[in-house]
Amino acid sequence: MFQNDAFRALDRQESLRLLAKVPVGRVVYTRQALPAVLPINFSLDTDASVLLSTSPDSDLVRAIDGVVVAFEADEFDAATRSGWSVVVTGRATVVTDPAEHERLSQAGPTSWMPLRDPVFIRIESEMVTRRELRGTHGTQ
Amino acid sequence: MFQNDAFRALDRQESLRLLAKVPVGRVVYTRQALPAVLPINFSLDTDASVLLSTSPDSDLVRAIDGVVVAFEADEFDAATRSGWSVVVTGRATVVTDPAEHERLSQAGPTSWMPLRDPVFIRIESEMVTRRELRGTHGTQ
Repeated sequence: MFQNDAFRALDRQESLRLLAKVPVGRVVYTRQALPAVLPINFSLDTDASVLLSTSPDSDLVRAIDGVVVAFEADEFDAATRSGWSVVVTGRATVVTDPAEHERLSQAGPTSWMPLRDPVFIRIESEMVTRRELRGTHGTQ
Repeated sequence: MFQNDAFRALDRQESLRLLAKVPVGRVVYTRQALPAVLPINFSLDTDASVLLSTSPDSDLVRAIDGVVVAFEADEFDAATRSGWSVVVTGRATVVTDPAEHERLSQAGPTSWMPLRDPVFIRIESEMVTRRELRGTHGTQ
């Protein structure tokens, strides 16, 4: 599918551009040996990692700190049956460095939920994949 | 959280009502030991199982036939920072019974992608959970 590395880099860039358009994505992980998924608002850091803000004692932190997860965002138009989906796969880690935490308190995402002393989770964008869906019958 | 079984049943019904409002959800599963997620249009069967239509030789069929998966759908409003998410967790199986396949060819979902000889996947709604997100600051 990919002609060369330049094309691959362009594709990654386009995927991240799409990702930055939407406020909410979904963390995909495993909880008690079952597939789990949690929608959450996010932002992208300057190194293209996905940033989440959540409660330090949340189930999410317990489940994903140090673990490879997927993070998905998409946009669909039912009228034209088309849209896109981007999936970032990489290791999730709670930000523990105080300076980094301080930086993200200014520049990172603000949770849509009211949180006391939030922590930030970073998901490295080790793998970024994109799917385009183009409908064939745009009548519904 | 739940007062009694009646409340639980009501909650399940409300969750399925929300699910039926949107055309696209996301199958959450494991592929090559990594968390995977695929958006796909769907419909609900009369027994509240989630129905998908896909290609018989798709990666999705190979990955989820006979396996417990999660299926998530949601709706969010960035302006009010609120929304809902419903997750169905249950076993996915390819419909192999000819009569059932025939019934779903009429009443089941039609894939947004052009497919030759599609198969139907049924995800049993063994567990249905719902989250409501209500924003505290509706200014952005």
